[in-house]
Amino acid sequence: MSDLTSPFPTLPAPADPMAAALALAEHAVGVSEPNPRVGCVITSADGRWLLGQGHTQAVGSAHAEIMALRDAQARGHDVRGATAWVTLEPCAHHGRTPPCCDALVAAGMARVVAAVGDPNPLVNGQGMARLRAAGVSADWGPPTHALAATELNIGFFSRMQRQRPWVRLKMAGSLDGRTALANGVSQWITSPEARADGHAWRRRAGAVLTGIQTALADDPMLDVRHVPTQVQPVRVVLDSHLRLPPTARLLQSGSPVWLYTAVPANDARIASWQARSVRVRSVPDAATGRVDLHAVLADLTTQSINELHIEAGATLNGAWLAAGMVDEIVLYLAPMLLGQGAGLAHLGPWADLTPALRWQWQQIERIGPDLRLTARSAPPALVR
Amino acid sequence: MSDLTSPFPTLPAPADPMAAALALAEHAVGVSEPNPRVGCVITSADGRWLLGQGHTQAVGSAHAEIMALRDAQARGHDVRGATAWVTLEPCAHHGRTPPCCDALVAAGMARVVAAVGDPNPLVNGQGMARLRAAGVSADWGPPTHALAATELNIGFFSRMQRQRPWVRLKMAGSLDGRTALANGVSQWITSPEARADGHAWRRRAGAVLTGIQTALADDPMLDVRHVPTQVQPVRVVLDSHLRLPPTARLLQSGSPVWLYTAVPANDARIASWQARSVRVRSVPDAATGRVDLHAVLADLTTQSINELHIEAGATLNGAWLAAGMVDEIVLYLAPMLLGQGAGLAHLGPWADLTPALRWQWQQIERIGPDLRLTARSAPPALVR
Repeated sequence: MSDLTSPFPTLPAPADPMAAALALAEHAVGVSEPNPRVGCVITSADGRWLLGQGHTQAVGSAHAEIMALRDAQARGHDVRGATAWVTLEPCAHHGRTPPCCDALVAAGMARVVAAVGDPNPLVNGQGMARLRAAGVSADWGPPTHALAATELNIGFFSRMQRQRPWVRLKMAGSLDGRTALANGVSQWITSPEARADGHAWRRRAGAVLTGIQTALADDPMLDVRHVPTQVQPVRVVLDSHLRLPPTARLLQSGSPVWLYTAVPANDARIASWQARSVRVRSVPDAATGRVDLHAVLADLTTQSINELHIEAGATLNGAWLAAGMVDEIVLYLAPMLLGQGAGLAHLGPWADLTPALRWQWQQIERIGPDLRLTARSAPPALVR
Repeated sequence: MSDLTSPFPTLPAPADPMAAALALAEHAVGVSEPNPRVGCVITSADGRWLLGQGHTQAVGSAHAEIMALRDAQARGHDVRGATAWVTLEPCAHHGRTPPCCDALVAAGMARVVAAVGDPNPLVNGQGMARLRAAGVSADWGPPTHALAATELNIGFFSRMQRQRPWVRLKMAGSLDGRTALANGVSQWITSPEARADGHAWRRRAGAVLTGIQTALADDPMLDVRHVPTQVQPVRVVLDSHLRLPPTARLLQSGSPVWLYTAVPANDARIASWQARSVRVRSVPDAATGRVDLHAVLADLTTQSINELHIEAGATLNGAWLAAGMVDEIVLYLAPMLLGQGAGLAHLGPWADLTPALRWQWQQIERIGPDLRLTARSAPPALVR
């Protein structure tokens, strides 16, 4: 199927086209938010040639399938009778863009292989059904690729299947769990490498959340700086009593800032913040007089936040953990012992270990001189 | 050189005879204390056949070279002209046994390869020199084998080169550095697998040390139970005021118990303990009224303790760490967050991070559901 008259060199097909599509999908991190990260590879009917490839672009722009079709066209390749390898079932509905299924059918594709189904319960399988109805052979790839495709979009799957974001709690401290010395000094326990790695996790997130105590104490930007990104996450502050000063640094850069507060919805300060383009939601927890964390998650879901990245102090970390709402811990450990100082999370006191949620290691990795531990509260069980 | 008339099958030589000797040397852990763990492999002159092999036996019994020579003899192999691969330079002096050099010469060995020199500054190289003087070719093996041989005997090297034991601090806790809940409950934060692994580290040690607070609170045995061993480490309690009760469980099993105290050497209780076969040394620190940790280490060195294994509470852990006398940390982390409770080590408070000794990761390993982190205070720099 290689077009030898094309001015473009025809590339051999990758040995594992779906693995290549997954690698492309990785490039959509920091680009496609809140759309899922999807890659597509088109191979010739005889399986020997790579005709086109692409990944999801910014929201409202082309999906991976369209990018791959355009790539093939630009290279002068005829895709009739070809196979498309897609890391997520092609969409069958009109969203911000027309259905990719229809584009694949129109292009004359003979076969479509998808790594995993669209997790939206209302959609799952309809894309494949629509392709088959149009005479296209539509198959699922092997489970390992399904797992990788799900992992890459764990927040999207979580939002579609559980109607809440994937909640990731990032912490950093010493081997004995101290995030700062007793006098508050915390710079720099973990290394520049760990901080850059932390920004790579922020880039994955639709929103980076902190508490008012951290906002007041550290005046953080909460943005992605140490790794490149096209899309900045929303910055979220839980500010029960609306104490954030208008001079806060996070208000001085471009990406949106959202506040969740416990003051009544008719409080004049809310209107004042909103006039400054800061989105404010009143979600009081009647029992505590503070922000209702469940309501925060529910609202973030309506705002299409797939992955929620929390970087807060011990009090708020403990509140999220105690509420059982943390799916994943990302913990950087610096190889030192500090003895005294702020802890990772306020929890307990407990009379026994029963309330101590046991985590399951996900990955252990050295990051510069530090260690990064990722652990999950339970297997995600999100694969179709 | 294979003796085809022997009733024993002649075995092919291992591809890497020194690696095979190192594997044999591992079997001397829990056996040869306080002698170094040494392995020996004898191969035929043409390098094709394994003639004999062995490792260091219990103190006063045969060294590795003698065991390998005996093995070859038992198998009916003639070792004249053969090569001996030894993980430590053969001894040249009369200790509890005659010099191995002389035995190798007498056996007609043509060549001896040693992985690393005897670390005793008074001996280093003399074994090889003595072999050469007798017409035996004596070579050093490659650096990787030297490193492995040194690691296996890190305490022996420490005692010979630094005149103090290798000090290993074993700790276990939650991800946020809690060894027990606020009410003292600590069973079981880490897993049975981690406890068995901890006993394997105890087995390596010449002495297992704890403080009187732990002895009183937990009444530990401090022996090696969860892994097999031929030799039990000495049990050491730092007991400044001689508060250990005669009913303590660690007094009820066979291996020696040593107490270090701050009471005067002429205190009648010391004689009383010694009458019970408990070795007691008075090593007061005038400044604190407690046991002088430097004096403890110095005394343990005179008692041929190669590796000192510390399992204590936060107070004593902190004292050893603050004194800069810990060479290696072995830390088991259970995948849970506890929030409150006893910490790993009392240190600080510090005004900045300058006093916070930075450790270097040695190994990161999953042990059952837990994680084992080993870290060292500095590269050992013990290789010749």
